[in-house]
Amino acid sequence: MSKARTTITDIARELNISPATVSRALNNHPAISRQTREAVIALARKLNYHPNLLALSLLRKRTNTIGVIVPEITSYFFSSVIGGVQDLLTAQGMNMIIGQSNESLEEEKALVEKFTSIRVDGFLISPSRETKDYGHLQVLKDSLFPLVIFDRDCEDLEVDKVFVDEYRGALQAVEYLIHTGCRRIAHIAGSATLSTARHRLAAYRDALKKYQLPVLDDYIIESSGFTPEAGIEPTKHLLALPEPPDAIFTVNDGVAIGAMYVIKEAGISIPNEISVIGFDDEPYSCYFKPSLSTVWQPTYELGMLSARILMKRVNAAQEAFTPKVEKLFPELIIRGSSR
Amino acid sequence: MSKARTTITDIARELNISPATVSRALNNHPAISRQTREAVIALARKLNYHPNLLALSLLRKRTNTIGVIVPEITSYFFSSVIGGVQDLLTAQGMNMIIGQSNESLEEEKALVEKFTSIRVDGFLISPSRETKDYGHLQVLKDSLFPLVIFDRDCEDLEVDKVFVDEYRGALQAVEYLIHTGCRRIAHIAGSATLSTARHRLAAYRDALKKYQLPVLDDYIIESSGFTPEAGIEPTKHLLALPEPPDAIFTVNDGVAIGAMYVIKEAGISIPNEISVIGFDDEPYSCYFKPSLSTVWQPTYELGMLSARILMKRVNAAQEAFTPKVEKLFPELIIRGSSR
Repeated sequence: MSKARTTITDIARELNISPATVSRALNNHPAISRQTREAVIALARKLNYHPNLLALSLLRKRTNTIGVIVPEITSYFFSSVIGGVQDLLTAQGMNMIIGQSNESLEEEKALVEKFTSIRVDGFLISPSRETKDYGHLQVLKDSLFPLVIFDRDCEDLEVDKVFVDEYRGALQAVEYLIHTGCRRIAHIAGSATLSTARHRLAAYRDALKKYQLPVLDDYIIESSGFTPEAGIEPTKHLLALPEPPDAIFTVNDGVAIGAMYVIKEAGISIPNEISVIGFDDEPYSCYFKPSLSTVWQPTYELGMLSARILMKRVNAAQEAFTPKVEKLFPELIIRGSSR
Repeated sequence: MSKARTTITDIARELNISPATVSRALNNHPAISRQTREAVIALARKLNYHPNLLALSLLRKRTNTIGVIVPEITSYFFSSVIGGVQDLLTAQGMNMIIGQSNESLEEEKALVEKFTSIRVDGFLISPSRETKDYGHLQVLKDSLFPLVIFDRDCEDLEVDKVFVDEYRGALQAVEYLIHTGCRRIAHIAGSATLSTARHRLAAYRDALKKYQLPVLDDYIIESSGFTPEAGIEPTKHLLALPEPPDAIFTVNDGVAIGAMYVIKEAGISIPNEISVIGFDDEPYSCYFKPSLSTVWQPTYELGMLSARILMKRVNAAQEAFTPKVEKLFPELIIRGSSR
């Protein structure tokens, strides 16, 4: 694949006509002969030229627009990250186009294609749950499109990345449970296809091992999502075990809220009989009774930093660089749901 | 103000040159004489022509992009509305640019200007708390930009609008409290500058009057925002009254969650001693103990319908029409926090 994008000048040079003629041919201008038009279109296709880059690149080199693709925008986590992205971009006079992939690889690919065709200056992408094949992202990298991956990792793709150190946060949470005397600690995990969920699970296992506690399959359940609903069945299952857990660490606050609901309905005392710790520190988490212990993530800062790194690349377009990985620190917040 | 936008053809005709020459002149093309360029630029300014419409209108009549402006995207309400907007637009092959005004009139104006200059095909706007002067929106209307106002009203502006019938929802909530025996019903209201908050307050007053209950100033407190924090002080104040309320209807769920927190901390039983009803039905509201009674708003549908109406206008550009106002119905959801 060519490293530089095809321009109308390339097409014009190869056909020995003016760029303006190429432009008119691509726009079906009546003054252009059918023969010329067909030659231009054939060459444009061959060179993988995006016709609708034309107008914008005629006018100015940049569109001052960043494409942001997230799995969903209605969750607190991503809407809060987007808040940080927006504030940084606005301060730099940039616009933002947002798309949500709905956790679908196909929709993510379609968004990448659409945003490429309207010629965004760069991409901020948090990949969908289904994104295990990074071909569409590799194309962006190969085409020298500035790209920052945030929150969820694409492990073999060497581009700028910004994460929260989930492992560190989860380790702190589980170690806290151990330090406060919990010995039968369960984990309601997230989908194993997500790097974020895998890191939290890995930290859970490592913390138990570090303190010579057994890692029991019975105590690890993958939830079907991030909502309270997704926490209901796993918690019922855990409570029905011959030896129910004395603590539950959940993949996020949503699932923790579902877990607390089930535990309270069963007449079991939180935190005296079971401690619960979530992840995210959502806005309502401290208003439950007991208030939810959790791991705060710097979501707004994650958005800000991702956008800042992207803008650096946009402003230094096409210069060579070594991709960087930035990690932000989470923070354990102890409230009433844990001893 | 002229009703139609100036095109490069207008400029070309008036100067008796070709549109392509106008285009090149505006783009500083070296083949164009300084004299011609200056004449084009002077006339473009005089006719209030937006130079950066040029490239896009050369290429195609539309940018296939809708500008969405909301007060904030991190609230459940607006992120959920945007979800509906996005799904409709995606299905029609449209992009969406989102901006948040952060409840600031200045930022809202800047976003309108920016989106106009990149030539969006239409606007979906929920005005900021500060937006009492609609000049910038009137300009859009006068320039025949398709525009739909949603959720929050701009009362004197005659454009398409989509609302939830807040009055109806609030009336149902307060009537329910009356029917279940509450007689000292308080209201923690939203900012009086918001039409949505005014409608909820008006319904509260009307319901009390309808049942010959006194409307007491002491029982109406304006909150400083929509978060649980904003519900804390008003609730403490209400509980400290010589005759504390036996029910609180709040402007939204966030404030209701703060109110429930204070009431429970004070050792007062919900709903036996005080009923609480919120507004919005946020995802976590049913997981509190007691679960929160509330008024569900069709947020996703609000986004869908607003986008659908806007796309109708976009597709029938410049045809005359009478603006329409659509209202969606909310629904009272009774849970554990009310008798």
